[in-house]
Amino acid sequence: MRFGLFGGATAQGSDVVIDSSRDYRHYVDYVCAAEALGFHSVFMVEHHFTGFNQVSASLTFLSYLAARTSRMRLGTAVAVLPWHNPVLLAEQAATVDLLSGGRLDFGVGRGYRHSEFAGFCIPMDEAEERYNEALAVIRKAWTTDGRFSHHGRRWHYEDVVVEPAPTQRPHPPLWVGAGNPEVIRAVAQDGIRVLLDQLSTPEVSGRRLAAYRDAVEAQGRTFDPMHVGLTRGLHLALNRGERDRQHALRAQFLDHVRRLTLNPAAAMGTLASAAAADPREATEATTLIGDPDEIIARLRALEALGIEYVLLMDLEGSLATLETFAREVMPAFAPRADAAVAA
Amino acid sequence: MRFGLFGGATAQGSDVVIDSSRDYRHYVDYVCAAEALGFHSVFMVEHHFTGFNQVSASLTFLSYLAARTSRMRLGTAVAVLPWHNPVLLAEQAATVDLLSGGRLDFGVGRGYRHSEFAGFCIPMDEAEERYNEALAVIRKAWTTDGRFSHHGRRWHYEDVVVEPAPTQRPHPPLWVGAGNPEVIRAVAQDGIRVLLDQLSTPEVSGRRLAAYRDAVEAQGRTFDPMHVGLTRGLHLALNRGERDRQHALRAQFLDHVRRLTLNPAAAMGTLASAAAADPREATEATTLIGDPDEIIARLRALEALGIEYVLLMDLEGSLATLETFAREVMPAFAPRADAAVAA
Repeated sequence: MRFGLFGGATAQGSDVVIDSSRDYRHYVDYVCAAEALGFHSVFMVEHHFTGFNQVSASLTFLSYLAARTSRMRLGTAVAVLPWHNPVLLAEQAATVDLLSGGRLDFGVGRGYRHSEFAGFCIPMDEAEERYNEALAVIRKAWTTDGRFSHHGRRWHYEDVVVEPAPTQRPHPPLWVGAGNPEVIRAVAQDGIRVLLDQLSTPEVSGRRLAAYRDAVEAQGRTFDPMHVGLTRGLHLALNRGERDRQHALRAQFLDHVRRLTLNPAAAMGTLASAAAADPREATEATTLIGDPDEIIARLRALEALGIEYVLLMDLEGSLATLETFAREVMPAFAPRADAAVAA
Repeated sequence: MRFGLFGGATAQGSDVVIDSSRDYRHYVDYVCAAEALGFHSVFMVEHHFTGFNQVSASLTFLSYLAARTSRMRLGTAVAVLPWHNPVLLAEQAATVDLLSGGRLDFGVGRGYRHSEFAGFCIPMDEAEERYNEALAVIRKAWTTDGRFSHHGRRWHYEDVVVEPAPTQRPHPPLWVGAGNPEVIRAVAQDGIRVLLDQLSTPEVSGRRLAAYRDAVEAQGRTFDPMHVGLTRGLHLALNRGERDRQHALRAQFLDHVRRLTLNPAAAMGTLASAAAADPREATEATTLIGDPDEIIARLRALEALGIEYVLLMDLEGSLATLETFAREVMPAFAPRADAAVAA
């Protein structure tokens, strides 16, 4: 099993605007410490307009981390394509890949937060179409030998060559967040890796991994479990009081995301149901909550379902928690034979 | 007098596609060496679609340099606003400013290369309008306390807050390239700093600096010569053979830029005239060509015109040239009293 980090520079459970410079510096130190402790990757979210100094320019931040780290994979989770000029995004991603020596994992997505679509004045029902066009442009930019043109619904380019070329050829691995089994199959067939969400139960996540594996193997390819990353909330709690505090933190986080995500006038799938469920029950079912022994047991259950790549999201961004995890949990899981090299 | 670097990671005089990874790494080392040698800043160009692996994502690159340097100012020269979603650009710039501890100099421009407007399928006659709207959005984003909306001709935002906030308040210094005296006056009145081009003679550059200074002083403010950066080609030549080679290099560069800039079906102001002039004569008149003593004399002439901030562009990106300049030219110019601190 391998472990990565998932999240951003600011404590996402909080509505309090804190000093972003301090937060960013703390997060850089946190990521550097994670590399030293043996974590395999960091996947950074991209969000906008929250009012609490979230990371917005994830590739810009990863470029800084590229200079401060030397082995970790650097991921976006995800770059939201409907906001970006796809050629400029491809240039930024390739620049990070190049400067990091080929360590970029390029996660892309459609976006899901109502507050962001409203802020950018982009109708949410255009997300799919915009995503598809942007992804097509980016792949064309990275796989075309020489110049190309594109005349789509949103974007036009004439006789362009997108530079620099990324170090990983033909391009950095693509990752998408997916849950629907049909989407997972399509993604697998397309050679794209998958990020599984932090709100689903292990059983649901296991079925999704199986759907991905089956689709890969149906093509006659070998399934690599490192191509499926599962995000889990990490809630270290050594006693009852700490457990209660972690539950409160998680409930606050879910409420926060729900408010940013939902259209005040409507309701949406997964997050609405997650919010409707009892938060304490949901947290017990879906996160790595407990003391190290309990967390090991929870990870063993995931491992039994075939999951070998877990991305941890600690809402507190606590270095002490990271160290406890590395010292008391990680050794229980044999590193994969190729753990020293890139994914 | 203070000195900075101007340019990008790839030898701009060459049409040959070279390995961009090697070029980028070399440029990082070059910039780090420049900091150690006492250079004050690096201003990076942004260009697209040249086919020779130029720097395209300048803020992404500067973010990497922010981690590798500790004192240098990090500048864009310039971020071409018509290509960018202004809110995403403001987020990227603020992220670099924050991660660098407030070292960003944010140069912005309208763009001037026909090949880039054609590639992005943006009519060149929209450059001014797009530039004005984007700059207004960026300034609004950085000076509005709380949320704002913008509904312009190209961009729409509703109830957004642009984060993170930059470290320099209210925002990183803005720089623009300007030559026309009326534009220079307007820029000065607007509190924006100015980048003077590398193609004009010292006399013309001196008049432009004077126009800027006069406009600042007419407002009752104190003119700071560090607010006017003059770019000069650096062509170290210790003998006649080297001088000839530097002339050839410069002529190739001017020809190259002209081809990327001009509409094949038309002709344009400055660059067309620069190209029409005898290149050898133009190079003698406008660059820092010669041995260290001649370069010192050329810089003294600029100093006599009031110019105190010179950005060097060495087409070869030679570390040896940089070292020679630092060892044999820089000591002839007293560092300004506040040379150890930021601009």
